[in-house]
Amino acid sequence: MPCQFQFRRRIEFAETDMAGIVHFSNFYRYMEQTEHEFFRSLDLSLMLPQPDGSIIGWPRVSASCSFKAPAYYNDFLDLTLRVERRGVKSLTYRFDMTRGDTLIAVGQMKTVCCRFRPGQPLESIEIPPPYSERIEEAPQDRS
Amino acid sequence: MPCQFQFRRRIEFAETDMAGIVHFSNFYRYMEQTEHEFFRSLDLSLMLPQPDGSIIGWPRVSASCSFKAPAYYNDFLDLTLRVERRGVKSLTYRFDMTRGDTLIAVGQMKTVCCRFRPGQPLESIEIPPPYSERIEEAPQDRS
Amino acid sequence: MPCQFQFRRRIEFAETDMAGIVHFSNFYRYMEQTEHEFFRSLDLSLMLPQPDGSIIGWPRVSASCSFKAPAYYNDFLDLTLRVERRGVKSLTYRFDMTRGDTLIAVGQMKTVCCRFRPGQPLESIEIPPPYSERIEEAPQDRS
Amino acid sequence: MPCQFQFRRRIEFAETDMAGIVHFSNFYRYMEQTEHEFFRSLDLSLMLPQPDGSIIGWPRVSASCSFKAPAYYNDFLDLTLRVERRGVKSLTYRFDMTRGDTLIAVGQMKTVCCRFRPGQPLESIEIPPPYSERIEEAPQDRS
Repeated sequence: MPCQFQFRRRIEFAETDMAGIVHFSNFYRYMEQTEHEFFRSLDLSLMLPQPDGSIIGWPRVSASCSFKAPAYYNDFLDLTLRVERRGVKSLTYRFDMTRGDTLIAVGQMKTVCCRFRPGQPLESIEIPPPYSERIEEAPQDRS
Repeated sequence: MPCQFQFRRRIEFAETDMAGIVHFSNFYRYMEQTEHEFFRSLDLSLMLPQPDGSIIGWPRVSASCSFKAPAYYNDFLDLTLRVERRGVKSLTYRFDMTRGDTLIAVGQMKTVCCRFRPGQPLESIEIPPPYSERIEEAPQDRS
Repeated sequence: MPCQFQFRRRIEFAETDMAGIVHFSNFYRYMEQTEHEFFRSLDLSLMLPQPDGSIIGWPRVSASCSFKAPAYYNDFLDLTLRVERRGVKSLTYRFDMTRGDTLIAVGQMKTVCCRFRPGQPLESIEIPPPYSERIEEAPQDRS
Repeated sequence: MPCQFQFRRRIEFAETDMAGIVHFSNFYRYMEQTEHEFFRSLDLSLMLPQPDGSIIGWPRVSASCSFKAPAYYNDFLDLTLRVERRGVKSLTYRFDMTRGDTLIAVGQMKTVCCRFRPGQPLESIEIPPPYSERIEEAPQDRS
């Protein structure tokens, strides 16, 4: 089962700011986009309508990012997602973001499986199939 | 009944791009924000849940903007909304955007009253109360 | 010389709003992204630093979009750019945006070639090489 | 000297996503906006052009956020910024974000004082006046 995923994307003009570099808030979107491509690669969706009218989704518990070097318009950013932890109800990813040999940023994101019902509070649930059947925790890094 | 509204907002850092000016895509958000403040000033919401579970909303038919002068970080932008036309199912606004005496942009936005039902296509409807009771077309400009 | 360009992109989750559809302001970014991919395909950049320290760029004169059908998360959007007019200092594009056989939106964007000098107002200039050598006006549509 | 700041902002429609809640990436922008309002309240700018043509700015070292409860369109979000640490070259803020009595999110952001010179790498510098004269570290919280 997969526990790692690679994704490449361009830095777009609208993602820069007047300092001439990527605005830091975009890196959280890059992480999310990589997660979604990971899900797509497993034929999974981030929003899964259920027979009872509810929807299973994955709101964020937390997200952090450390910025190591600036990224610029036109750069190719390579993102590596790694499933650091698969809990009963949550997934924690680590993201390494590079441009060629330069480390641009390192991020972490924790997301929890929830049931959305119109007009009711979010309810966290145990990760159900098909998610639980297709997403695996990465082996511990001993280094 | 009101047909015009004034709104002032700051240009935020994240809204600039590497050319040092506001990215043009943000002006469409400024227009929307002004429309929403207009609605709020009339105690109206852009999303109105109905007793039957449907939601009345206002998707866009079209939006255009002409850019007259660049806007910069920290600028105060003054937006004037004017209801150019109130149709049976739609509203057309004109927006004048200025910074002091400088005209920054002029925009137009047409929005249509619709019923959203989960899993069904959007359905345009006649503008119902309370919208129809509180929003008026501006008098024709003879100039 | 090229006067037309095709680009496909995914609708991302962060581009949707609470109405469950793509927020209209994103279509202006999609048009820009398509323009930039068009420039890249011609080995052109939207920001061209000059020997004298100035930068040649392409700020927008105007942009409009008509929304024909809603677009959703995960959709593939196919954008066709067509150079409707190549003026002395400006380019006007038309964009047709489709999902399969469904027309989603039609847009137009006019952009003007300008010289950016730090601390000075934007100055519009005649379109210089290499832009003028590589971008052509599309033949008139007789239909 | 100030070490704390309060800011209130509305949740805008464009900041929601198809799950009906604020997209998490916006909270990093809310933190930045609060920081900028804090700077403005001290008559400080985030981008300070220098006599030698360089610019002093504040790129991010890291930013994290924990999401405690969802926020919705139209909500008023109250943000409290606290200068957790004033280092020689950096500032670390903590942000508490609430809607009424409900804790929505808690964030942290570290930002470093840098000199931007066109065409040269970012250079971190000791926090100069007027920043150093007007921003203070908050007293340690003993609780």
